[in-house]
Amino acid sequence: MNTEQFRRAGYQAIDRICDHYNSMEEKAVKPSVEPGYLQKALPSAPPTKGEDIEVIANDFQDLIMPGVMHWQHPSFFAYFPAAGTLESIIGDLYASTAMNPGFNWMCSPACTELENVTMDWAASLYGLSKDFYNSANVGGGVIQTNASECAMLAIVAARSRYLMLYPDVPMEKLVIYVTTQTHSLGLKAGLVLGLSVYAFPVRTEDNLSLRGEDLREIIEMDRAEGKHPFVIIGTVGTTSSGAIDNIDEIGETLSDYPEIWLHIDAAWLGAAFSCPEYRERCRVPAINEYADSVCVNFHKWGLVSLDCSGMWVRNRKHLTEALDITPPFLRSSEGDAGTVIDYRNWSLALGRRFRSAKLWFVLRSFGVEGYQAHIRRSISLGEIFVERVREHPELLELVVPPSFSLSVFRIAPRAVPDISADELNELNELYYRNIDKRKDIMLTRTELNGVHCVRFVTGALETKPHHIESAFAICSETAKASIKEYIEGRVQVTKQHRTN
Amino acid sequence: MNTEQFRRAGYQAIDRICDHYNSMEEKAVKPSVEPGYLQKALPSAPPTKGEDIEVIANDFQDLIMPGVMHWQHPSFFAYFPAAGTLESIIGDLYASTAMNPGFNWMCSPACTELENVTMDWAASLYGLSKDFYNSANVGGGVIQTNASECAMLAIVAARSRYLMLYPDVPMEKLVIYVTTQTHSLGLKAGLVLGLSVYAFPVRTEDNLSLRGEDLREIIEMDRAEGKHPFVIIGTVGTTSSGAIDNIDEIGETLSDYPEIWLHIDAAWLGAAFSCPEYRERCRVPAINEYADSVCVNFHKWGLVSLDCSGMWVRNRKHLTEALDITPPFLRSSEGDAGTVIDYRNWSLALGRRFRSAKLWFVLRSFGVEGYQAHIRRSISLGEIFVERVREHPELLELVVPPSFSLSVFRIAPRAVPDISADELNELNELYYRNIDKRKDIMLTRTELNGVHCVRFVTGALETKPHHIESAFAICSETAKASIKEYIEGRVQVTKQHRTN
Repeated sequence: MNTEQFRRAGYQAIDRICDHYNSMEEKAVKPSVEPGYLQKALPSAPPTKGEDIEVIANDFQDLIMPGVMHWQHPSFFAYFPAAGTLESIIGDLYASTAMNPGFNWMCSPACTELENVTMDWAASLYGLSKDFYNSANVGGGVIQTNASECAMLAIVAARSRYLMLYPDVPMEKLVIYVTTQTHSLGLKAGLVLGLSVYAFPVRTEDNLSLRGEDLREIIEMDRAEGKHPFVIIGTVGTTSSGAIDNIDEIGETLSDYPEIWLHIDAAWLGAAFSCPEYRERCRVPAINEYADSVCVNFHKWGLVSLDCSGMWVRNRKHLTEALDITPPFLRSSEGDAGTVIDYRNWSLALGRRFRSAKLWFVLRSFGVEGYQAHIRRSISLGEIFVERVREHPELLELVVPPSFSLSVFRIAPRAVPDISADELNELNELYYRNIDKRKDIMLTRTELNGVHCVRFVTGALETKPHHIESAFAICSETAKASIKEYIEGRVQVTKQHRTN
Repeated sequence: MNTEQFRRAGYQAIDRICDHYNSMEEKAVKPSVEPGYLQKALPSAPPTKGEDIEVIANDFQDLIMPGVMHWQHPSFFAYFPAAGTLESIIGDLYASTAMNPGFNWMCSPACTELENVTMDWAASLYGLSKDFYNSANVGGGVIQTNASECAMLAIVAARSRYLMLYPDVPMEKLVIYVTTQTHSLGLKAGLVLGLSVYAFPVRTEDNLSLRGEDLREIIEMDRAEGKHPFVIIGTVGTTSSGAIDNIDEIGETLSDYPEIWLHIDAAWLGAAFSCPEYRERCRVPAINEYADSVCVNFHKWGLVSLDCSGMWVRNRKHLTEALDITPPFLRSSEGDAGTVIDYRNWSLALGRRFRSAKLWFVLRSFGVEGYQAHIRRSISLGEIFVERVREHPELLELVVPPSFSLSVFRIAPRAVPDISADELNELNELYYRNIDKRKDIMLTRTELNGVHCVRFVTGALETKPHHIESAFAICSETAKASIKEYIEGRVQVTKQHRTN
């Protein structure tokens, strides 16, 4: 392909992205395809002769796009937002001009330095302590691929620091602390690293967040049993309900156990740190005081496309001491002189994409005010939904207090007289299945301490108040229909039971 | 940013990529910037108000591009190629239309299915056994971010399989086998996982490749000492010299130790599997017979831009049993039914970029023949360089036999009468520093069993025979100048010594 062919194909791709975004709202959120649809449509081997790019691009439109879920759709309220922006696409496209693995400074100085700078910018945007700035040359920020990687690397750094103090502790005695509400990244890191994980149960009356005294009790119990807790993952904005662990209490407790590392997973909610009025509630002051490492995914609510996960550490040497390997073929005069950051020593990977470019485009094109406006708009949209739920207590209820743009709700017990807890769970499972059958809206379910419920989270850039009203209308009508279906099913079962 | 602004910015980005590639040859390979150049040029915080995209794009040209190393430059012969193509950029741009984290089938069915299909296509292109095809539903392929991640996950799967057989083995007794020539990914995985790594010394007379009998001897010794080797990383194309471990011998030895996992790191050389005439030499038949997992980086020699690392496993259940965690919020009716692959259970990450799109564009637009032509062209360009070195035995020598497009050379001992081995290393260090001072060419150094030398590897798409001739001219002139400088320096030292 020469550059003229590339220009034509590139313009066409840009036009099609425009068409896609211009017409997104008319499309269903969810694809209507069956498992295996694409395997059936494509040959089993690549073509022998090269094909024209236009043919491939048309196949992308005709075969791939019908199987895509539209995470940027205004009626997408599931999981967490993937609020990647057009600005981010432009930034990523420019990054393509500089295709290089960026593993050390010399590989492509601009890549390392832009990552230094943008991670400081993001730290400033989020109100993080200067301790986490690259420019202070003690801590610093790095872009990883995803929050699971950030958590794993934090645990690796924590283990390395712990084992320097207690070199004889066998791996089997090490324990990672998470809560039952921590993202699967906690258990996954345990599986990958082969380490034990203890998940603290958290109480609904504590808003599903971990308390400092519970932490102290278990640390003491574990130590008495010869176990060595060495890291705790505190979550600011859990996946299920947006719960925020009591980072201040946790931090205060850990003051008595300074060898235990505190990693903060704020993968989703971290984007809200950009608004000063939310920082107290998000425990940013406590994070700044106590956390050894923090993760915020720019690629969730943070306007950047995947993959782009920000990780800050209070002391970079804990990360690099745990990860630095410098074979001869990777030595460079600048690295040897210690004048530059070599990011390969901050991560698992050697080769890495030039991810800071898209972050830079987004932070500059939105500016602090534009970024804050996006967060505040998402939250106020979420509040409309919460208000509607509260206006219909006979039908629906919030299961826990809403957390910023995330609310968790279910069909209320009072909607069906004399229903048991198990039956109510069954009904809410049916309710979710019925919502999930629809293609014009996307929500996900969860379970909170045995209570089956449905999540609703805003964050797509194009969502407007009327999309929330439609979503609520769907949720309330489907609730009524599900109750009817459930009661009829129960009557049916009872009848059959009587007949038998 | 609305879609019309995006269209303008997108066209401009495409035009600039065209300009960049059209003028690449006139540019220096290496940037002329000092550490910190960009930090000094940029403000310390993001702007308060959003900025115009054109201003940002211009800054990208003016501030970022001068600090970029051009890995696609025809005179880039360092590390391994990052032979990302314009086709790959287009594919990645289309992937941006479908920004979603693709962690399970339902997240975006097309993303999972295209990954299934393209990984089978690549397996077919590379002549891998059908055991590794997704369509066979036993083994399968997945796109990871990088080769270090592939190796780490292979080790995790290996450990999980091993500990099912021997559940009481303490972690401290587990050993990962690599060789002294294995990429840093082996030691890195050991650091990250907290496991011991044993690096086999390999002999220059064996072309720096591991022999089956050496493996057997150490397994027996380790077992006698109560250690538990459970995985070995065999390399097909080492970073330093392109060495190829004797996978057939290793595989045969391992037939007596079936609980030890064989992972093949063919991150760079795997792309050459596409040419049937190279498969025997690349040990593809042995890989097909013995390997439990294989990694090939599409983003090196394989025409795809970063990140895109192919990983195949002979039995997917070893990977998923080691990594599967399914919390309620990730359950989907298709996943529950087992009818689809949920790639989150094949990797560390949950969220993942839609990487198969660019692989699909590349495989289709090049076709098998175009892909093979690229590999054969790179190799024949490398052969020109090797020929020139051989034509100048009074000046230069190959340190080991060339490996496909990679050769390792140095100033020959005979170039300086009566030079000791240490002095020759000193001279070759000086030689490399002098080559490295140039901005118009990029090579990297290495060390092979104590011998200091320089690597030369081809792979950039735009490299032509005349670039190789120029590169050799630079290498031979710099060798002569370095010898002169070295001898003069020696005379100087001797004179000073006499004066004192």
